[in-house]
Amino acid sequence: MHLPLNLNTLLEIIEVFGILAFACSGFIEAHRREMDMVGTFTVGFITAFGGGTLRDLLLDRRPLFWVERQDYVILIFVLALALTPVMRHLSSRLSEKVIVFADALGLGLFSVLGTSIAQEAHMPLFVAVMMGVITGIFGGVLRDVLCNEIPLVLKRGHLYATCAFFGCWVFLGLDRLGLPDSITLPAGIAVTFVMRMLAVRFNLRLPG
Amino acid sequence: MHLPLNLNTLLEIIEVFGILAFACSGFIEAHRREMDMVGTFTVGFITAFGGGTLRDLLLDRRPLFWVERQDYVILIFVLALALTPVMRHLSSRLSEKVIVFADALGLGLFSVLGTSIAQEAHMPLFVAVMMGVITGIFGGVLRDVLCNEIPLVLKRGHLYATCAFFGCWVFLGLDRLGLPDSITLPAGIAVTFVMRMLAVRFNLRLPG
Amino acid sequence: MHLPLNLNTLLEIIEVFGILAFACSGFIEAHRREMDMVGTFTVGFITAFGGGTLRDLLLDRRPLFWVERQDYVILIFVLALALTPVMRHLSSRLSEKVIVFADALGLGLFSVLGTSIAQEAHMPLFVAVMMGVITGIFGGVLRDVLCNEIPLVLKRGHLYATCAFFGCWVFLGLDRLGLPDSITLPAGIAVTFVMRMLAVRFNLRLPG
Repeated sequence: MHLPLNLNTLLEIIEVFGILAFACSGFIEAHRREMDMVGTFTVGFITAFGGGTLRDLLLDRRPLFWVERQDYVILIFVLALALTPVMRHLSSRLSEKVIVFADALGLGLFSVLGTSIAQEAHMPLFVAVMMGVITGIFGGVLRDVLCNEIPLVLKRGHLYATCAFFGCWVFLGLDRLGLPDSITLPAGIAVTFVMRMLAVRFNLRLPG
Repeated sequence: MHLPLNLNTLLEIIEVFGILAFACSGFIEAHRREMDMVGTFTVGFITAFGGGTLRDLLLDRRPLFWVERQDYVILIFVLALALTPVMRHLSSRLSEKVIVFADALGLGLFSVLGTSIAQEAHMPLFVAVMMGVITGIFGGVLRDVLCNEIPLVLKRGHLYATCAFFGCWVFLGLDRLGLPDSITLPAGIAVTFVMRMLAVRFNLRLPG
Repeated sequence: MHLPLNLNTLLEIIEVFGILAFACSGFIEAHRREMDMVGTFTVGFITAFGGGTLRDLLLDRRPLFWVERQDYVILIFVLALALTPVMRHLSSRLSEKVIVFADALGLGLFSVLGTSIAQEAHMPLFVAVMMGVITGIFGGVLRDVLCNEIPLVLKRGHLYATCAFFGCWVFLGLDRLGLPDSITLPAGIAVTFVMRMLAVRFNLRLPG
């Protein structure tokens, strides 16, 4: 993809936010289950990169994202070492809001980029959207499986996968209209993000 | 494989039955855990295609079955949307018997076809049988892991994996005798199916 | 790797010990959950080969180790058949100590060999160590996920993954110094093994 420099920078910033948000949600779950640093790092790492790794396994893409970007792995490792001893002192009220915000950004970015990657691998349309949603949500699914919980995203909660689903279709639809990545990617991410924030704010759920 | 048209048609019919049975068993588990449409679709999809996907990952085969047959994915998606709101009204007694029947057909088909695929990929004999059994049972294993249960197929219940195991050996044995697919495939499927129905009827279990 | 014959023999002996120890820990967990032979074999098999299989999927290596070494698979299958009916009669006190010992050997071997394989696949340093630790510990993680438990290795217990982590770095460090495999492999395995035995003996844990 040839994107203007500004957009690439913006996507990288969102990426860092998203990875940190995903990793932190893993750290928090690990802490609740009284895991040590190994558990904290493992759960944080799998939450952050599990979705993209599963997508790459399904599409047979290598090297994996985190193999090429070892700096992200080391960042999560250092954070796990540094945060594990102080987890219980972190004020949770404020940080929860920050995490919901960053997580929604990450969900949008990972899902829409996942769909874009699947499309480049010539997946059929519906499968490309599924690959995007898998990229966005499966880190959290694996986090909950490791923590011996029914995955949050599968239970009747505020719209989550649904937001990614719509965002990916918006991206694909605009892409089919011939619009450039500099429009389609931000549009898909924005739709996912706004829909997710509205779902949290107004308590929107699917029928169960 | 060059099969007579009739056999191919028969195998496709069994395939649809099997996929629907597997997906429905996923829908039912999702409903029991009060999941929404996202959960219902995810669990149904993974139950139906998880075993074959794991086999293809292990054998490094692409494209995945469900990527080539997007219509099956969309079918499960539409069923999940349509059935989620009415799950509680479905009479369960009759449908359970239908599902056990269709599930036994699917178990036979997926296991024997999985062994056939593994054999074409030059797997050694015992590994080929294991790949077949994995194809048949791992969708259910992943369903139960997602639903936070010890996988049913690993617990002491009516013979299940064992039926697939014997069916796959029958298929391989007849294949070694030089018999054509038009005999070996139905024979393996029939052995699995009949053994499974007998196990349910006569309460057959392995020692525990 | 060109190793002197004696070292290769030693590594193979450790390998058999490690695989048996891993499989037995799977058998024991399966027995605790009242699984039948299918469950016992499945959990034992996944505990023994799950870590190496995940590493090979991540690195895109084929054929998988257990596909090439079908004899190990059949060994675990026969053991599961033979041991399932008599599991409850096995004296557990002595065998637990033997398993801790053999498991520590296996942890060292699988982790260090995993790092060596990842290095040959040109993984960056930190990722190579992670691949080694994944090889060593993920069989146990999958065992616990199948048995519906939070993975033992992620909880605050005696140092386990940490030992593999240090052993892998020792192996990589010595390798960077230009030392031959006949020194680096045993050194990494020994560090992991000794550290693990000390952790069990002196109750060493990470802060939680």
